[in-house]
Amino acid sequence: MLGARKRIALLAEGHFTPADAKTAVGVLRYRPREVAAILDSARAGRTAEACVGLGGATPVVASVADAAALGADALLLGIAPQGGGLPHAWRPPIADALSRGWDVFAGLHVFLGDDPEFAALAAAHGGRLHDVRRPPARRPIAARRAMETGALVVLTVGSDCNVGKMTAALEVRDELQRRGVRAAFVATGQTGIFIADEGVAVDAVAADFVAGFTEEMVLAAARDADVVLVEGQGSIVHPGYSGVALSLLHGACPEAMILCHEAGRALLRIAEDAEPMPVLPLADLVTEHERAADWMRPATVVGVALNTRTLAEEAARQAVTHAGQSTGLPATDPVRFGAGPLADAVVRALEERASRAPGR
Amino acid sequence: MLGARKRIALLAEGHFTPADAKTAVGVLRYRPREVAAILDSARAGRTAEACVGLGGATPVVASVADAAALGADALLLGIAPQGGGLPHAWRPPIADALSRGWDVFAGLHVFLGDDPEFAALAAAHGGRLHDVRRPPARRPIAARRAMETGALVVLTVGSDCNVGKMTAALEVRDELQRRGVRAAFVATGQTGIFIADEGVAVDAVAADFVAGFTEEMVLAAARDADVVLVEGQGSIVHPGYSGVALSLLHGACPEAMILCHEAGRALLRIAEDAEPMPVLPLADLVTEHERAADWMRPATVVGVALNTRTLAEEAARQAVTHAGQSTGLPATDPVRFGAGPLADAVVRALEERASRAPGR
Repeated sequence: MLGARKRIALLAEGHFTPADAKTAVGVLRYRPREVAAILDSARAGRTAEACVGLGGATPVVASVADAAALGADALLLGIAPQGGGLPHAWRPPIADALSRGWDVFAGLHVFLGDDPEFAALAAAHGGRLHDVRRPPARRPIAARRAMETGALVVLTVGSDCNVGKMTAALEVRDELQRRGVRAAFVATGQTGIFIADEGVAVDAVAADFVAGFTEEMVLAAARDADVVLVEGQGSIVHPGYSGVALSLLHGACPEAMILCHEAGRALLRIAEDAEPMPVLPLADLVTEHERAADWMRPATVVGVALNTRTLAEEAARQAVTHAGQSTGLPATDPVRFGAGPLADAVVRALEERASRAPGR
Repeated sequence: MLGARKRIALLAEGHFTPADAKTAVGVLRYRPREVAAILDSARAGRTAEACVGLGGATPVVASVADAAALGADALLLGIAPQGGGLPHAWRPPIADALSRGWDVFAGLHVFLGDDPEFAALAAAHGGRLHDVRRPPARRPIAARRAMETGALVVLTVGSDCNVGKMTAALEVRDELQRRGVRAAFVATGQTGIFIADEGVAVDAVAADFVAGFTEEMVLAAARDADVVLVEGQGSIVHPGYSGVALSLLHGACPEAMILCHEAGRALLRIAEDAEPMPVLPLADLVTEHERAADWMRPATVVGVALNTRTLAEEAARQAVTHAGQSTGLPATDPVRFGAGPLADAVVRALEERASRAPGR
């Protein structure tokens, strides 16, 4: 998707913070060598590290021209605004990039390719518009076929949206690969697709086909892997996104789940005009996810991935300990403290599976 | 949508049976005066009643020309093929109808309006293409706002797809209206939209917004109603459609559910290449639906709507009795034996609600 030869400018205008620039942070974390600069005129002159705690000395600049001077030749929209529309302030830098013949990568619910001005600029100057959230034209219906794979399917599930489900899946995959396990990652959201160079943004797919695309991706990934880590979306207990989360659960048919949560988050991320909803206790989330999985195939939560981004070191360690105690499961912050305990849990699940089916 | 002045020809070519022609049967049942003829060359010369058990003497004809001779001036696609594509055999009659200047109503996942041949024919002859499954452009995210309505929200849920959820909702609405209760129907699928002249086909909406559209429709319907009957889709235990079903449940935030089932159906409707899945026992379905509803708002299943279409009279009565005994709930086939027991249950739920909140 991004390809190997692009030098990316990440557009995060006015929002280059860990909380807002989820896509930019993900690309910086997992494809750092391809990022030439970050665009945020409010923070120009700082480094990525100073703004979001990673990305080292990658500079934050004020304009597309400044990014071009640093060698950038592609623009990637690094923020996912709620609702998926295009903020008006982004039109000038996108037009500027297209006028330079750059490719533009977007994961919005509205498609840049359908915008007459952008389409004309791309055509005139030879750049391409990549709308990674545009769904494929096929219409697959899931039928529990993902159960038939020989690989162990592991789904990251969450207490809420934006808690670290993609990051947990990638960190566990990387740790398993370091141990020599053939582990694959299935991207189901825009950031994951930018990182993996493939995938389907399931939240933009017509609802009937979310489980079907998930099933297809799991079966494809399982061809060359013994463990398939599937990026979860939303939460089965979120009023807006529960259907997407359940479709992923029932399309992927995992045998193991990793429960993801952001330490300290007490309320679900829902619209501010609505009555607030508390995040459920982790132990309850384990129970409810295992219940919902069981409608398709028995599955167990094998560990907790805690995102402790907002906490100081000591508080983070305490939060991890508490998450482990309250659930009776291995817990870690896979970014801060390593994914070892989660990889251990996945390997145990693999071994238990092998011992149950010795013929395999 | 259909409007009041149209005389409809229902396209059911080769499939005008109760099991296959779900949309045609629904339109015949609830808008019989607008149907001029049914198109099915394999059954031409028979009556609707002889083919599907309702629709009286409405004739089945072999061609669009024959339907035109009976006064038809619009074509409605009366079958929903699995996957939602356009069968090749339907192209000639659709083109014929458009060449006569007719409107064509469709509820497929592929849109007739995007087909260059059909669009050109419509433009040339003055007919219109109505793709009722085309999702609105808005992107609403649900946030449990449907809880705030003063109306009692009732959702029909199911053991599987195509078991009678729309019909149950319409029959209970009609019975409540006969009793003087202000009851409204929210259509969430193509057939329901044809019948109600409004609604959103939620299975075709980008997955993130299914609950949001449901919430909007419930709030709109509740403005002029004391009971809102919401048409359910799929089933939370169906591997392909569970996400749509959960989005409806969490978007509508019902306080009451009516569990729908087709008597005698033992296996879920999934692809024939997949491992068969049994339909869950009704009592288990009650438990699981109440559990999943509770993630948003406590709700109870108040009755069972049993579709006994394939059974003889005595077997149907026994099946209804058995459904009632196995769940401890009022049960009926609302089409065959009347919706009285379900309307009674909804009225009781209304009264209990009033007694809990005397100030309202």
